[in-house]
Amino acid sequence: MKHTPQAPSVADADSSGFSVELGTDRPMRLDCGVDLGPFTVAYQTYGELNADKSNAVLVCHALSGDQFVASTHPNTGKPGWWHILIGPGRPLDPAHHHIICANVLGGCMGTTGPASIDPATGEPYGVNFPVITIADMVRAQARLLDHLGIDKLFCVIGGSMGGMQVLQWASMFPDRMHTAVPIAAAARHSAQNIGFHEVGRQAIMADPDWHGGNYAAKDVSPSRGLAVARMAAHITYLSEAALRRKFGRKLQDRSQITYGFEADFQVESYLRHQGMTFVERFDANSYLYLTRAMDYFDMVADHDGVLADAFTGTSVRFCVVSFTSDWLFTTSEVREIVHALNAVAADVSFVEIDTDKGHDAFLLDEPELHATLGGFLSAAAEKLGFETP
Amino acid sequence: MKHTPQAPSVADADSSGFSVELGTDRPMRLDCGVDLGPFTVAYQTYGELNADKSNAVLVCHALSGDQFVASTHPNTGKPGWWHILIGPGRPLDPAHHHIICANVLGGCMGTTGPASIDPATGEPYGVNFPVITIADMVRAQARLLDHLGIDKLFCVIGGSMGGMQVLQWASMFPDRMHTAVPIAAAARHSAQNIGFHEVGRQAIMADPDWHGGNYAAKDVSPSRGLAVARMAAHITYLSEAALRRKFGRKLQDRSQITYGFEADFQVESYLRHQGMTFVERFDANSYLYLTRAMDYFDMVADHDGVLADAFTGTSVRFCVVSFTSDWLFTTSEVREIVHALNAVAADVSFVEIDTDKGHDAFLLDEPELHATLGGFLSAAAEKLGFETP
Repeated sequence: MKHTPQAPSVADADSSGFSVELGTDRPMRLDCGVDLGPFTVAYQTYGELNADKSNAVLVCHALSGDQFVASTHPNTGKPGWWHILIGPGRPLDPAHHHIICANVLGGCMGTTGPASIDPATGEPYGVNFPVITIADMVRAQARLLDHLGIDKLFCVIGGSMGGMQVLQWASMFPDRMHTAVPIAAAARHSAQNIGFHEVGRQAIMADPDWHGGNYAAKDVSPSRGLAVARMAAHITYLSEAALRRKFGRKLQDRSQITYGFEADFQVESYLRHQGMTFVERFDANSYLYLTRAMDYFDMVADHDGVLADAFTGTSVRFCVVSFTSDWLFTTSEVREIVHALNAVAADVSFVEIDTDKGHDAFLLDEPELHATLGGFLSAAAEKLGFETP
Repeated sequence: MKHTPQAPSVADADSSGFSVELGTDRPMRLDCGVDLGPFTVAYQTYGELNADKSNAVLVCHALSGDQFVASTHPNTGKPGWWHILIGPGRPLDPAHHHIICANVLGGCMGTTGPASIDPATGEPYGVNFPVITIADMVRAQARLLDHLGIDKLFCVIGGSMGGMQVLQWASMFPDRMHTAVPIAAAARHSAQNIGFHEVGRQAIMADPDWHGGNYAAKDVSPSRGLAVARMAAHITYLSEAALRRKFGRKLQDRSQITYGFEADFQVESYLRHQGMTFVERFDANSYLYLTRAMDYFDMVADHDGVLADAFTGTSVRFCVVSFTSDWLFTTSEVREIVHALNAVAADVSFVEIDTDKGHDAFLLDEPELHATLGGFLSAAAEKLGFETP
């Protein structure tokens, strides 16, 4: 099937950016026991909220994502990370949906995180920021919805760390959502994934410019460590087949190896570029906190070993998606979620998409993903008696 | 099958360590064009060379290995890295074989490498050491055999980078060997593997204590960077299944997560330990050079895209081994070698061993590997008319 990659179809003028201070009256109790408040949530919206507030879709972003889901990124000038899913006739359509995407708690694009000023000291939190969990991110999003007066979301959707938030939403707030779309996400982080995260954290903390997390006070940042962390992580987002197809052993701008340590191979040049550009838009301490939240994510342990108990009696409709070549969150891990949902007789569609693009497929122009999401969301809207496109 | 892990059965007193200066009269031309000489090769031997010098076995070590294949390691006090394969009644038996294991060129345990003194300057080479290849390592080993007066080896054997050397031996010096046993090795390094190596190198070079490779002059070493490199690499040596079985999400010496950045999980503690202990026995610049040699290894390109041409007319008997859960050198990559050998009607046995231990299986107590090697070597000795155990 011939498929033309989609360009952004949402103009930046059609998006609105907001920042709201929450928890001023009532602080938010975090899993670690700390009461956080006030705290700021920065978010973007696309499309109008309808009169009965029934068309809201919450998009949850991944580790390296942010609220600029379909807007030009303010630091990089690049299109939003999920722009291909959002626009007229696309699965998420601002003509029908009120799309909300908030920077996660612990993030670095406006929502309170380790780079924010600690009101108690007047200095950036650094590693004094409390260690947060996926559930804490979800609590902060629920507070945002309280503020917006939205009782029930049409859909909560996200991939990778975003998919973890979707699962946590469905577990904690099943009455506040009609549908849930966790993509390329597992109910608990694997040993291998924890291992890769730990490599990244050690790379950051080994950088002398990290200064025990207080680099802001020294006006430096542990860019070299963060770049190495990103390089290691990036390999895990791609499949071996995709790396072979894209790069193989092809040389970069040269016809012969140089017998040296420059980036002779295209794959080296590509990874170095990924590392260097990431540090321009991401905070190293945020990287520590968000990877830790993912490591700690374990909905199985949260329910004493029975994942199904997370979803008992749920009326949420689920669309669960995995990718054949994703080795970070494999189909077999994703199936654990499906089995748990089946065990409680939940309404669940499961789609394993055949692709060689690895974990990153959830961000890419993957026609079967788009068709799956479009079909699920239209069918759900119809069943729920909502106006459909 | 019940199997008891084997303890070392070779006493250190039964091993001899040597160091020899080679290339004094005639320097060695490296692939990069540099003439190297004189250079030192440090090696260990086990068992006596017989009168007709027909019982010599060359063991080639992997990236993080050395010549102490069956001897207590002088730095760590640990048993030799392949001690379970060597001893009375084991596949390599000093009662029958004269086993030679030399530290590779570019290594850091006595053979000339980047930490050695450059005779031209009186200072350590650092990154002025010429970039070497797997073929250069093999050339240095061949020079050692010239020195020892051994014309033809009974066997060349090794795993991982050691397996690359075995393949290079069979291609360059087929008349100097009867049998070749490449284990868990490919004929060319994949894009994914180059990527992981590049992450490790960037971690080392990002460490301010690397000092552009001249850390010896400053009396420091880039230990933090090298530890991160080792941690990232170590994950690739294990399978996801092995990590799940060994560690899963088990906590380290605690019953609850700590909401912090300590090594809460056993897998974190394990990887940190791997990183910390590695730096005590390995030189960071050697790590750069040896990973680079592996990246550059491409016997397919060396033969204009036809791997079989590397083995045309060979009379070497091959035993090629892969492991089902090895994702660094997959069975499908290893099969490329077997197909090439089949194409030139070489005498080849191929064994894929079913194990969940990943790439590291070649170093572990893997009964099927030991049975395979024992069987192949006895049969080969018999066919060649050698005295067998």
